[in-house]
Amino acid sequence: MEQLDQDAGARMHDWARDLWPICRSITGPGIRQTLDWLETRLPGLQRHRFATGEKVFDWTVPQEWTIRDAWIEHESGQRFAEFNRNTLHVMGYSGPIDAELDRADLLSLIYTQADQPDVIPYVTSYYTPRVGFCMADAQKQTLPKGRYRAVIDSTLADGELVLGDLLIPGDSPQEVLFSTYICHPSMANNELSGPVLATALAEYIRALPRRRMSYRFLFLAETIGAVAYLSRHLDHLKAHVQAGFVLSCVGDERAFSHVESRYGTTLADKALAAALHGRDSAKRYSFLERGSDERQFCAPGVDLPVAGFCRSKYGTYPEYHTSADDLTLVTPTGLGESHAAMRSIVDAFELPPAPHVTVLAEPQLGKRGLYPTLSQKQAIHPARFRMNVIAYCDGTNSVFDICARIGANLSDVVAELRVLHAHGLIA
Amino acid sequence: MEQLDQDAGARMHDWARDLWPICRSITGPGIRQTLDWLETRLPGLQRHRFATGEKVFDWTVPQEWTIRDAWIEHESGQRFAEFNRNTLHVMGYSGPIDAELDRADLLSLIYTQADQPDVIPYVTSYYTPRVGFCMADAQKQTLPKGRYRAVIDSTLADGELVLGDLLIPGDSPQEVLFSTYICHPSMANNELSGPVLATALAEYIRALPRRRMSYRFLFLAETIGAVAYLSRHLDHLKAHVQAGFVLSCVGDERAFSHVESRYGTTLADKALAAALHGRDSAKRYSFLERGSDERQFCAPGVDLPVAGFCRSKYGTYPEYHTSADDLTLVTPTGLGESHAAMRSIVDAFELPPAPHVTVLAEPQLGKRGLYPTLSQKQAIHPARFRMNVIAYCDGTNSVFDICARIGANLSDVVAELRVLHAHGLIA
Amino acid sequence: MEQLDQDAGARMHDWARDLWPICRSITGPGIRQTLDWLETRLPGLQRHRFATGEKVFDWTVPQEWTIRDAWIEHESGQRFAEFNRNTLHVMGYSGPIDAELDRADLLSLIYTQADQPDVIPYVTSYYTPRVGFCMADAQKQTLPKGRYRAVIDSTLADGELVLGDLLIPGDSPQEVLFSTYICHPSMANNELSGPVLATALAEYIRALPRRRMSYRFLFLAETIGAVAYLSRHLDHLKAHVQAGFVLSCVGDERAFSHVESRYGTTLADKALAAALHGRDSAKRYSFLERGSDERQFCAPGVDLPVAGFCRSKYGTYPEYHTSADDLTLVTPTGLGESHAAMRSIVDAFELPPAPHVTVLAEPQLGKRGLYPTLSQKQAIHPARFRMNVIAYCDGTNSVFDICARIGANLSDVVAELRVLHAHGLIA
Repeated sequence: MEQLDQDAGARMHDWARDLWPICRSITGPGIRQTLDWLETRLPGLQRHRFATGEKVFDWTVPQEWTIRDAWIEHESGQRFAEFNRNTLHVMGYSGPIDAELDRADLLSLIYTQADQPDVIPYVTSYYTPRVGFCMADAQKQTLPKGRYRAVIDSTLADGELVLGDLLIPGDSPQEVLFSTYICHPSMANNELSGPVLATALAEYIRALPRRRMSYRFLFLAETIGAVAYLSRHLDHLKAHVQAGFVLSCVGDERAFSHVESRYGTTLADKALAAALHGRDSAKRYSFLERGSDERQFCAPGVDLPVAGFCRSKYGTYPEYHTSADDLTLVTPTGLGESHAAMRSIVDAFELPPAPHVTVLAEPQLGKRGLYPTLSQKQAIHPARFRMNVIAYCDGTNSVFDICARIGANLSDVVAELRVLHAHGLIA
Repeated sequence: MEQLDQDAGARMHDWARDLWPICRSITGPGIRQTLDWLETRLPGLQRHRFATGEKVFDWTVPQEWTIRDAWIEHESGQRFAEFNRNTLHVMGYSGPIDAELDRADLLSLIYTQADQPDVIPYVTSYYTPRVGFCMADAQKQTLPKGRYRAVIDSTLADGELVLGDLLIPGDSPQEVLFSTYICHPSMANNELSGPVLATALAEYIRALPRRRMSYRFLFLAETIGAVAYLSRHLDHLKAHVQAGFVLSCVGDERAFSHVESRYGTTLADKALAAALHGRDSAKRYSFLERGSDERQFCAPGVDLPVAGFCRSKYGTYPEYHTSADDLTLVTPTGLGESHAAMRSIVDAFELPPAPHVTVLAEPQLGKRGLYPTLSQKQAIHPARFRMNVIAYCDGTNSVFDICARIGANLSDVVAELRVLHAHGLIA
Repeated sequence: MEQLDQDAGARMHDWARDLWPICRSITGPGIRQTLDWLETRLPGLQRHRFATGEKVFDWTVPQEWTIRDAWIEHESGQRFAEFNRNTLHVMGYSGPIDAELDRADLLSLIYTQADQPDVIPYVTSYYTPRVGFCMADAQKQTLPKGRYRAVIDSTLADGELVLGDLLIPGDSPQEVLFSTYICHPSMANNELSGPVLATALAEYIRALPRRRMSYRFLFLAETIGAVAYLSRHLDHLKAHVQAGFVLSCVGDERAFSHVESRYGTTLADKALAAALHGRDSAKRYSFLERGSDERQFCAPGVDLPVAGFCRSKYGTYPEYHTSADDLTLVTPTGLGESHAAMRSIVDAFELPPAPHVTVLAEPQLGKRGLYPTLSQKQAIHPARFRMNVIAYCDGTNSVFDICARIGANLSDVVAELRVLHAHGLIA
């Protein structure tokens, strides 16, 4: 398999640290600040805007939420659930409050994750007005008796939904799509890992001397952002997208996960399966276990060839949607390995889509120095991998199909195809 | 899964008790009495008649068999194998006899099941003339020495083969077929369970306020009856039958069995698989293990989309084809569960054949009260089943395909589709 | 399964003994002597000739190699690696030498198989000039100190590549192909088993009173011979070959192996799977594990429907490519069983390609004496196999497909189809 680009991993981890303090939600200042940051690295990033109240397919764009501060203060002066210590302490889309309460009334405003008593859970209520704080259950249990002041300094008002869209054009107008989300507050795997990987991939693609394919990167609010984008761009996407990947939870080191498209048979599924083949703890999940924007991209009538890529899939790791999903869980190695896997897909899309060997019968590899000149019994034929790649370069298989046929990882097959191409053995 | 209709089960069991004493065979008075009984519940039941000697495809209709009485009497006056105690004591289609015999000659007329010494086996010789009694092997071993009189008061004479046919018309001339047999003497699972389930299903369908599909019920002699019916109605069936089910051994509580059509890929197979999904001890048998009239309906050139439905499949349970196949083996619960499974198939056929969601991207279920308004981590998303049903309502899947895709039982999917239809989310 | 033809096995083993002493290589006198022997049994065998330097697809025909003698003599007069004791002692295509050497220099010319110290390995260097002896590693370790004379009396000179080609015509110009190789020195399984089986099959086919199909047998050098033949005959083969089989290592008793064509889905794959179904230790290998001329016949653009047949597959048994691959490893029984398996394929090709039952619904087998006349419960229905064969005689299945559908060996299905044909039940 490919060499790991250690620098890429470290660079992405630094970027995630920059973006960590911003309190993002599906609308509001946090998402704009995040797009500002992305634009510094990705000049040309376009923004699309959708006004509060705009109908996007079956949905309506909600009001814009601004959160400035939040805390709970006991009559003793002790403070809890301070927003400026952890952005998770306020429920996403919480309405404002500034009230004196006794302990019992306060408790009714506090959300915890009882089965994980030591972490702050991530809770939202986008479309139903609520007021709420989030707190470790262990802390909630020990809140002292007495009177409290509860303050959430937030606003819900008409505004806009905004999202970022970057097209890197190539020789063909056909596109490979990467979509990721920028709508969660301070969480690392289930938020920042996606945008920083997308940024690094876009930089890699931009640096290619020439591109066969065009590449599109979307940075948007999960669900409503994807629905909104699709509502304006569906025809274009259906005509141009060859394969797409939703990047979510791509920074830890525990697994590689493929979340299938609706039927699991698209080019994106084949590409992802090839890129993950043979990696430690590679897992394949059916569409029944989806959870990110493959929900929208693969919905009936949308029908885009999009699969989801994760390390530990959302919902399957204990830190998910809690304050424990932080920058110790996401590592430079984790991000770097994800980068390598996605890069192998880009490299494959830059090769001929269905390579064809240029000779009839087997080529005489020996005369090209590609085959042992002495024939003696060995446990595995030294040119076996090479001959297997050649055998399926018959013009009917994509690079990804070849990986599936011969049971090999994409980066190894890409490297071999480059050798064969250099020797004139594939067109 | 659906609620069990306890009343239906009890009602069917009562009917089976009514029909128990009749000595049916492939022809003769027993089958006519059974049709008389069915007609009282199913007005409009048509009879088709085939005269002895009539060619039906490769077969010839045999003579009609009438059995009045049979017994063996020892010189002591003790009687054995009394037909009026158990109809199984006389071999099906046995010729008449009234003779004095010594024990050795008598034994040559007695058929037993040596590996099940305590039960009377069910034995027939339809197409080769024989005379025979059937008896528990244990009893045969203890028959006293001495002289015997053996009496079988039967007639084989030219007559007719008769069968029952009920069409319940709907908006569409396309038919769902249920076929069952009425040709065995007093056995409960492998005889009466089928006709009483068919009767209850026909009553259920007739009570529907409106029907999208037409439904046909056949009550006939296994093999020769099915061949005879097909010989006159094949063209009509090939043009109209969407899916068919052979009901056999549908009254015990031990398993649910699907006997596949010739290739296991028809709509009937999909429907049955969906109806049995997730039920305890559901088993799927290939066509290689067929045994009832799927043999005829799925024969080459007939090629009807018909699968077999059983609880414990014929041939797989110890009581099969013996006197132990009685009304303690068949229970109200067993019959009721079969009824529920078949009813879910009828309900599914009354829904649109390939449902299509009415919106692009995911619908906003929350505004319809079909989705939780608070987003907080849970082991399984509370709307997951609903979202999975919606995802595959893409106009390419039958209701049965959706069950297969999402791994759900038919009655649950039918219920969910009714909810989605009520909210305008499927057309 | 079929009865074994003991005579055929013994006859083939005798032939292998005749051919054993000849030192074959990809060119030279050995291959011509072998063709001479084949022609005595197979009159009409044609030879095709390709001159040294001729381009055959991507390859160039090499010089012709003649080996007359070879040995190593110690100063004491003791001789080692004597060609006239074992043809494996000289490396295939070794250049000539006649030199006095000290022990160290001699050792650099000796090839052994270190992990099998007691056997002489088979080593070749066809396309890169080398000089070499082959020897058991144990013997090499004990070569005495002192001076040696090393002699290889060989010639490499312009000449020809020659191969044998026998067509046995039938009613149809469509061909079944058998290809085997005659390019190895004295080895039994990985050389002689193939040509003697091909010879026996050709004799069997010639003796048939009439042939539906045409049959072609190729005897050639592995790789270069197959490439050369294809370079002249590809269009003809693509237009005529229905199925082909590479016969290699077909004489031991340890396994039956099927090496798949490139996608494992050709008629040859189906035929071979059917012929091997249910045999002890039958194994199926993907094309990724190919090694004989299926490499050429199935290469991209050649695309012939050819699979490989072996007992123990080349490369998987310890004697492979060593002096232990001798006529004790290959046995009359081993050859006879291979003959029976291949003969069942020939027999199947002589039947109608997609048999169709002549009646609608099930035939009444009882009136033909093909079905029990008494119906009594039994563990497996006595006519089950027969009814299963009939069920899939629907005009869409080849004889081989029927085997796969019902899970039966080809020779059993062929026998049953002959019975059904005799009763007019299949056309």
